[in-house]
Amino acid sequence: MHKASKYTVQEQFMSESAWEKLRGLAKPSLAELFAGDPARLDTLATRFELGEDEAATTIRFDWSKTHLDAAHMAAFEELAEAMDFAGRRKALFGGEIVNPTEGRAAEHTAQRGVGKEESVMLAAENHHRMAAIVEAIHRGAMGEVKHLIHIGIGGSALGPALAVDALARDGAMVDVHVVSNIDGCAMEEAFKGCDPAKTMLAVASKTFTTIETMTNAESAIEWLRENGVEDPYGRVVALTASPEKAMEWGVDETRILPFSESVGGRYSLWSSIGFPVAMALGWPDFAEFLAGAAAMDEHFRDTDGSANLPLRAAFADQYYTRLRGCQTRAVFAYDERLALLPDYLQQLEMESNGKSVKADGSAVDGPTAPITWGGVGTDAQHAVFQLLHQGTNLVPVDFIASIAPGHDLSLDHHRILLSNCFAQGAALMAGKESDDPARAYPGDRPSATILLDEVSPATFGALIAFHEHRTFANAVLMGINPFDQFGVELGKEIAKQIEKGGTKFDPSTEALLELAGIS
Amino acid sequence: MHKASKYTVQEQFMSESAWEKLRGLAKPSLAELFAGDPARLDTLATRFELGEDEAATTIRFDWSKTHLDAAHMAAFEELAEAMDFAGRRKALFGGEIVNPTEGRAAEHTAQRGVGKEESVMLAAENHHRMAAIVEAIHRGAMGEVKHLIHIGIGGSALGPALAVDALARDGAMVDVHVVSNIDGCAMEEAFKGCDPAKTMLAVASKTFTTIETMTNAESAIEWLRENGVEDPYGRVVALTASPEKAMEWGVDETRILPFSESVGGRYSLWSSIGFPVAMALGWPDFAEFLAGAAAMDEHFRDTDGSANLPLRAAFADQYYTRLRGCQTRAVFAYDERLALLPDYLQQLEMESNGKSVKADGSAVDGPTAPITWGGVGTDAQHAVFQLLHQGTNLVPVDFIASIAPGHDLSLDHHRILLSNCFAQGAALMAGKESDDPARAYPGDRPSATILLDEVSPATFGALIAFHEHRTFANAVLMGINPFDQFGVELGKEIAKQIEKGGTKFDPSTEALLELAGIS
Repeated sequence: MHKASKYTVQEQFMSESAWEKLRGLAKPSLAELFAGDPARLDTLATRFELGEDEAATTIRFDWSKTHLDAAHMAAFEELAEAMDFAGRRKALFGGEIVNPTEGRAAEHTAQRGVGKEESVMLAAENHHRMAAIVEAIHRGAMGEVKHLIHIGIGGSALGPALAVDALARDGAMVDVHVVSNIDGCAMEEAFKGCDPAKTMLAVASKTFTTIETMTNAESAIEWLRENGVEDPYGRVVALTASPEKAMEWGVDETRILPFSESVGGRYSLWSSIGFPVAMALGWPDFAEFLAGAAAMDEHFRDTDGSANLPLRAAFADQYYTRLRGCQTRAVFAYDERLALLPDYLQQLEMESNGKSVKADGSAVDGPTAPITWGGVGTDAQHAVFQLLHQGTNLVPVDFIASIAPGHDLSLDHHRILLSNCFAQGAALMAGKESDDPARAYPGDRPSATILLDEVSPATFGALIAFHEHRTFANAVLMGINPFDQFGVELGKEIAKQIEKGGTKFDPSTEALLELAGIS
Repeated sequence: MHKASKYTVQEQFMSESAWEKLRGLAKPSLAELFAGDPARLDTLATRFELGEDEAATTIRFDWSKTHLDAAHMAAFEELAEAMDFAGRRKALFGGEIVNPTEGRAAEHTAQRGVGKEESVMLAAENHHRMAAIVEAIHRGAMGEVKHLIHIGIGGSALGPALAVDALARDGAMVDVHVVSNIDGCAMEEAFKGCDPAKTMLAVASKTFTTIETMTNAESAIEWLRENGVEDPYGRVVALTASPEKAMEWGVDETRILPFSESVGGRYSLWSSIGFPVAMALGWPDFAEFLAGAAAMDEHFRDTDGSANLPLRAAFADQYYTRLRGCQTRAVFAYDERLALLPDYLQQLEMESNGKSVKADGSAVDGPTAPITWGGVGTDAQHAVFQLLHQGTNLVPVDFIASIAPGHDLSLDHHRILLSNCFAQGAALMAGKESDDPARAYPGDRPSATILLDEVSPATFGALIAFHEHRTFANAVLMGINPFDQFGVELGKEIAKQIEKGGTKFDPSTEALLELAGIS
C-alpha cells in the first residue's frame, strides 16, 4: 500500500499522544478567551487576498468566536505533524495515489492549474476543447440555444446547480435547468420551462452508466423527439470520464467533453462537469472561477501550521467533533445566491469523511465527519435558530456573507441582512441572563464568519476550494481516505436485486414492495 | 401556573422511574428483533385510512425497522402516563392554555374543525370569508391575476411553499412565488417571473411587524408602482392575526384575512396563511387538505397507547435521542413534490422542541429536540448516504414515498425511485460483511417508512398533522412547552441594537460591522 495510506506505529503513537494532550487542555469560555488575549482577533481573523495589488478582492475568515486558542492550535499542529500532514498534502498536489482503495490520485487542483505537470497540461487541453465548444455554441454552432437541461446527479449536479445559482442570476447567457432526481416530476418541471426547439441537453456522468442520469436522459431524448426535434442525440453534449460509453449511447465524439478518471465526482465542478456554468457565464468568467480556486490551492499548498486557512478550519472542526462531542456542524449562507451551498458542502464533507475505517483499513479512533446541515439567512432565523440558541445540542456554526449586495433594490435589504448575520454570531457567543428561565440564553456558543467582498467567480472559486482543502485536512487529521465512497454501493446493489427480482428480503421490505406493486 | 405546565413531585418521580426502566431494558439488534417475533411487522406497521369505505386512501406507517419493541413501548407508555399525556392532549384539544409562557392556547386543530366549539366556529367563519375572497379573485374581482407573490418568513412561508410545491405542480390556478429572505436577490428573482399588471401580493405576518416581510412588501409595492400599477396597495391581501396593523400599513379591511392569536406561526398553514395554497388549488382542494388533517386529529385525540401513531413516532424519537445518544434525525422524501418537507419539519420540530427548560421553568433532564435534517431521494443517495451507511454517527431515518407517481413519463422512473427507497431501508438494517474493511457495512441502522397511496390534498394534510402531533407528543414526554420560541428573540434584539447604533459589541462583531460599512 502506498505511503499516503500507510500509518506507521510511530505515527499512531504520536497522534495518540497529541490527542492525549488535546484532551487535557483547559477549555475556557469564549468570553474568557477574549478577555485573556487582547490580540485574539488579530490572531484568529485573517484576510485572504485574491490578487496582489491594492484593489485585490478579499475574503475574511474569522475564527475568533470559536474555542480555538494558542494552546489548542499548537497541539493540533503536533497532531498534523504526527499524521504527516505535509507529506500527504505533497502527495495530493504531486498527483500520487491518495485514494488507495481505488488506486487513484485526486487531481481536482490540476483542473485549476496547480498540481503535477502532466495532469495540469491534460486539464488545460480538456479546458481548451471545452472553451472552444462553449464559444462555438454561443456563436450558434448548434442553432439557437436558449435552454440547457443539465442531467446529472450527486457530484454531477450539486456543483453546477450551486454555481449557476450563485453567479448567473443576472444575465445568464443560457437558461440552465439542472435535473437530478429519478422522480419524473423533476424532469417534467424542467420541460415546462423549455422550448424544445431551442433546448440542448448536457448529460453528465463520470461512468456514463448512472441509472438516474441515463433514465432521465432517455426521457429527455424522447421529449425532444415527441416535440419535433429530428435528431435529438444531436442536441446532446456529454460530460464524462468514459467517452466510449457516451459514444455507445449515441453522442457524437465531437460533442463529448472528457475529464480525467482522477477527478472525483464531488470534486468535478472544475472539469467539464462545469460545462453548464461556462455556458451560463461565458468562458472568461469560468476561467476566473478556476483562478480563484487556484489562489486558494497555492495558499493551502504553501502555508504551514495554523496560518493555513483550511487546516485551521479543520482544527476547529476536530475540536468540536472530537473534544466537544458535536455530531453536527451548521452552515448558514446569509446570501440568497449561496442558498445551495449547505447542500453542496453536505455532500463534499459527509461523502468524503463519513467513514469508519482509516485509509489503512484499521478502525477509526473517534467520531469522523459530523452531519453538515444549515440553510439560508435570514430565513433560518425563523426556523432553526431557536435550537441553536436554547437547545441542548452544541452546534458549531459557520456564517457566510458578502459585503456587496447582489441586487438593485433598496440598500435597506442588504444592511438588515448583514446586521442580522453579525447579530446572530454575537448573540450565540454572548447569551443573556434572565430571571425567567424560558427567556435565558446560555451563550458561549461558537461561530466562524466568512465574509466575501463580493460574490464573484473568483471569490466563489476560492470559497469552494477552501472547503475542499478543509475536508482533505480533516481526513488527514483523522487518518481516513476522503476520496472513496463505498458506503453508497450496498443500497445500489439491493436496488438492483429488487429490479431483477427473485431475492427474498426482510418482512418489512417485502411488504412495502408488495404494496407498491413492485414484487 | 396552569395544569398543562405544572409538573408535580409525583409526575417527576414517576417519569424518572420510567426512564430508569427504559435505560435498563435490553437493546436487541434489528435482526434479533425480527428473528424473535414473527408478528413484529403486524405490530409495528399500521395502515391509516382516510375515509371509511373500501376505496379509502391510506397511509402506511412502518416502524418495524426501528429498535422499538414490546418492552420499550410498554415502558414508554408508562412514561406517557407519568407525564399525563392524556390530560395534556385533552388540554390541547380543549383550547386550554398549553403555552403557559405566553398565556395562550394552541388551536391549530380547530382550524381543521377539531377542538373547542367556539374556536372551531370562529375558524369556520374565517375560512368562510377566505373561501369567498379566493373564489371572488378566481372569478376576476381583482382583474386578471396570473401571478401571486406571497411574502412571509418562517411559519408564514415554509408551509405555503411546501404545499404549493407538493400539490399544485399540475395546473395551478395562479402562479405562486413565495419570497421570504430579506436579501433582495430573493425578491428580484420573483419579479423576473411576474408581469406586474397581472400580479397580486399576499403579505403574511402574524404580527404584521416582521422586519423581513414588511421590508419585502415595501419593495414589492414600489415595484408595482414603478411598473405602472396605479393603486399598488389595492393589489394586496393581508394574512395576519393583527388586522389593525395591516390597515395602518395600507391594506383595505375587505382584503384582510385574519386568523386567531392562538394559532402559532409554525402551525398556521391551515389558517389564512394557507391563502396562496387555496389560490393555487381552488377552495375544494384546500378543504380536502383540512379534512385530511382532521382525520389525523381525531386519530390522535381518540387513540390510546402505542396504537396512537404520532405517540408511537415520539417513542421512537425519544428512544434514539435519549437512549442511543442521537443528536439528529433525518427525513428523506422519495418524491420530488415533497422536496421541501425536510425544511418544513426542521422548523416544526426544532423551533418547537429545541429548548433547555421544561414548561414549569426547571431544567430539562436530558437532550431535547435533535437536529432534523434530510433531503430528497434519490438525490441524497449520491450525497449523504455514505455517512448513513458507514459513518460513526447513528442517525434514525424516516423515508416518505408515494405509491402513485406524480408525472406522465415512463413508469421506469417511479419503479426505480421506489425500489431505491425500499432498498436503502433494507441496506441500512442488513449491512454487509466484507474482508475489506472499506467495503463493510455494519448494518443495524434504523429507519421508518411512511408510504402514501398518493400525494393528494388529504394525504398531505394528514401527513403534516401527523408531524405536528408527533412534535407535541415529544414535548409532553420531555415536559417542555412546544409553543413558545424565545430562543429567536436575542438575535433580533441585537440586530435592532446594530441598526440603532451606539452599542459596543465584542471585537469580532465590531470588526465585521466596520468592514461591511455598517458601524
